[in-house]
Amino acid sequence: MAYDDTNVFAKILRGELPAHKLYEDDDTFVMMDIMPRGDGHCLVIPKKPSRNIFDVEQESLAAVMRTVQKLSRAVMKAFQADGVTIQQFNEQAGGQVVFHLHVHVLPRFEGVALKPHTGAIEKPEVLAANAEKIRAALAGE
Amino acid sequence: MAYDDTNVFAKILRGELPAHKLYEDDDTFVMMDIMPRGDGHCLVIPKKPSRNIFDVEQESLAAVMRTVQKLSRAVMKAFQADGVTIQQFNEQAGGQVVFHLHVHVLPRFEGVALKPHTGAIEKPEVLAANAEKIRAALAGE
Repeated sequence: MAYDDTNVFAKILRGELPAHKLYEDDDTFVMMDIMPRGDGHCLVIPKKPSRNIFDVEQESLAAVMRTVQKLSRAVMKAFQADGVTIQQFNEQAGGQVVFHLHVHVLPRFEGVALKPHTGAIEKPEVLAANAEKIRAALAGE
Repeated sequence: MAYDDTNVFAKILRGELPAHKLYEDDDTFVMMDIMPRGDGHCLVIPKKPSRNIFDVEQESLAAVMRTVQKLSRAVMKAFQADGVTIQQFNEQAGGQVVFHLHVHVLPRFEGVALKPHTGAIEKPEVLAANAEKIRAALAGE
């Protein structure tokens, strides 16, 4: 399947849509998921266009995972989390909604289940406050 | 948290326990999940000891993801799947049960939900038949 550069993440990368940005480097970009399944749910994406696991270049995928590791450590610290769940969905049947490769990083807490993906957008002030905690954890590395 | 080399995957890597092996290279090993949440559910692990995302070396993680991509493509072909869901769990609160880093590769089909993780072990003949399909897809690459 071809890459379609009208997807939401491509627009965010081009600065055409806003995002709660947490981090970026030459190859990757990280933002809050605006429909979080738990506090601190964030998304790591490659800057290089790729639809999903099937077409991503190995170097781009390696860069994404380096950033996933960085964010996993940061959210543990930011939220005093007990663990992290990582998910990556490919094609509609695989759970993919936005067709630019992205990896979900979900801080987890003992006894707290993930919320279902309802499509409800979180309040901007909640996203901003959680983003600030993660940026502080990244800065204090 | 420290790595404990008495975990099940360490034993499989040392040949002390059997597995439905699908693939291996210098850095990674792939086997069927014996408690599958769907047909063709397999696991990619690094050969180098690491507990999870928090302690894995970047090169080892990059190698794991190269193999995840290889297996994702193979299971699509082997099962004529419609998508792939990738999951990776860290610490107990994050869903981790075996404390050697592993990535779940789950072939997905339109309209078919993942089965819950019940802990029920699949019949060996079903695992063997699905393993053979994936090995054939890998061989035909």
